[in-house]
Amino acid sequence: MENLGYYNGKIAPIDEMMVPMNDRASFFGDGVYEATMVRNHKIFALEDHLDRLYNSAGLVKIEIPYTKQELTDILNDLVQKVDAPEQMLYWQVTRGTAPRNHIFPKGVKANLWVTIKPMKVKDQSKKLLLTTMEDTRFFHCNIKTLNLMPNCIAAERAEEMGCDESIYHRGDIVTECAHSNISIIKDGVFITHPTDHFILPGITRKHIIQICKDHNIPVDETPFTMQELMDADEVLVSSSTQLCRSACSVDGVPVGGKSPELVKLIQDAYMEKFEKETN
Amino acid sequence: MENLGYYNGKIAPIDEMMVPMNDRASFFGDGVYEATMVRNHKIFALEDHLDRLYNSAGLVKIEIPYTKQELTDILNDLVQKVDAPEQMLYWQVTRGTAPRNHIFPKGVKANLWVTIKPMKVKDQSKKLLLTTMEDTRFFHCNIKTLNLMPNCIAAERAEEMGCDESIYHRGDIVTECAHSNISIIKDGVFITHPTDHFILPGITRKHIIQICKDHNIPVDETPFTMQELMDADEVLVSSSTQLCRSACSVDGVPVGGKSPELVKLIQDAYMEKFEKETN
Repeated sequence: MENLGYYNGKIAPIDEMMVPMNDRASFFGDGVYEATMVRNHKIFALEDHLDRLYNSAGLVKIEIPYTKQELTDILNDLVQKVDAPEQMLYWQVTRGTAPRNHIFPKGVKANLWVTIKPMKVKDQSKKLLLTTMEDTRFFHCNIKTLNLMPNCIAAERAEEMGCDESIYHRGDIVTECAHSNISIIKDGVFITHPTDHFILPGITRKHIIQICKDHNIPVDETPFTMQELMDADEVLVSSSTQLCRSACSVDGVPVGGKSPELVKLIQDAYMEKFEKETN
Repeated sequence: MENLGYYNGKIAPIDEMMVPMNDRASFFGDGVYEATMVRNHKIFALEDHLDRLYNSAGLVKIEIPYTKQELTDILNDLVQKVDAPEQMLYWQVTRGTAPRNHIFPKGVKANLWVTIKPMKVKDQSKKLLLTTMEDTRFFHCNIKTLNLMPNCIAAERAEEMGCDESIYHRGDIVTECAHSNISIIKDGVFITHPTDHFILPGITRKHIIQICKDHNIPVDETPFTMQELMDADEVLVSSSTQLCRSACSVDGVPVGGKSPELVKLIQDAYMEKFEKETN
C-alpha cells in the first residue's frame, strides 16, 4: 500500500478511513500517541516509544488493551504493508467510544489508531530557522496527549514567519519547541531542560544524552534562558522525525555555528545508531 | 429521531455516525465547540452561543464556512428532527480534513459536527457536592476548544469522590470548574472571576450577571480565593446544561446556605428567562 490507516483492526488508505464520531478523540482529544521513523520496514526505537506510550497512558488512566509485545507485533506487521522504504509510523490510543461525557466511560475498551505514510529521513546537515513564542500550554507537557491545539498554533506561527520551528519559553526559560525538544551546547557542555512537566521526555533527546555520555561530553539537565540560547555555541533541535538538527537563526538573528565539530560528532553517532537499528 | 449525529450535512443516529480519520479533531483536538439546552424544539440563547463560537474560532484562526444566519438555520432545522421535548444540542467546528501536520492545512474547509440528544432540564433546587483540584490547564481557557483532557480528568475526579463538580484553583485563586463557572455571594454581592484567559466566558454566567444587575444585586468581577469561597454565603455553579445550581459542600465541608433568598431570586429569574425563550 502507498499509505495505511488502521483502526481497531480495520485497514484502509488513510484518507478513506472512517472512525466513530463517539471516539473520545473527537470531543475531548482524549488519547495519547507516539510517532517514529521506519526504515527498511524496521521501526526505530520502538521499545522506547512503547515505554513512553504506556507511561503517558498510565498518567491519564487510559488502559491500553494490549501488552507491549502484542502492540509490537501489530505495528511490525503493519509497517510491512506499506511499500516505501522510509516511513513515518504514528499511533494513538484513545480512551474509547462512548456518548459524550467528561467523566470516563466505564467498561469501554480503548481504541488503537495507526497511520503509516512515506517520509524521507531528514537531511541532518540542513540547518533550521527558528522563531519564538511564549509557552502558554498546560502543565502536563510530559504526557504525549492529543490536546495539541497550542502546538499547532506554534507550528503555524513558524510557518508564517518562514521558519522551521517555534521555540517555546515560559517567561525567560526555554522549554521545548512546537514538536521538538531543544538543547544548547556551550563551552563543550550539552545543556537541556530537565524532563519535568514542562517538556516531553523526547526519545531522540534521550539518545543524544547517551551519545554525549559515551563521548565524554558533559550533560547538564538544567533550564536555560533565551539569552543563553542566543549566546550558545550551538542550538540543537531534536525529534523522532527530524532526528538531530542544528539551528542557524532565531527570528532572523544568527545563532550557533561555533562548535560544528561537536554537532557533527553527535549527528554522525546518531545516524550510525539509526542506520544500524534499521538495517 | 431519538438522537442525531450530523457531519457536514450527513445525518444518522450518533452511535452509527462515522467521520474521517483525518479530521483534525482526531489528532490535535483542533476545533471549537458550543452546547446549550433545547426545549420545545427552541434553542436557548443561540445568539450568545454563536457569538462565542465565532469568537473562539477567530482566536484560533478557524474560518467557519457559514454565516451566523446559515448556522442558525441548520441548527434550528436539526432540533426539529429529534423527538424529545428537552434536548442537549452540541456542535463543533474543526479546522478541516487533511493529512496529519501541525501546520494548518491550506485551502481546506472547516467541518461542522452536531449532536442532539434527549436531556432533562436539571432540577435547580438540588444542591451540588463539590471537590477541588489545582488548575494546571493552559492559558487559553477563554477559548472553547476541544483540548479537554484536563477537564475530563477533573470531572472524573469529582465522580470518584462522589461529587458533582471539581473546583479548579490556580494556587489560592478559584478560576472555574471542570465544565462550569463558579461564583459566590457574600454580604449581598455576587462575586465571580473576571473573563480573562483563565476562565470560559460562560453564557449562563453572563445571564446571571444581568439578572443581578436587573435586581440591584451588586456584581464584583474580581478573583476570589478558596478561603473566600469556603466562607461565602452562597456558592453558585453555572453552565448551559446545569443552568444555575447552588452548592452545599466542598470536599465534605459544608458551604453556603446563608443567603437562600438571593439564590432563589436568581434561580427563579433564570428559569423564567429560560422558559420564556423556549416556549
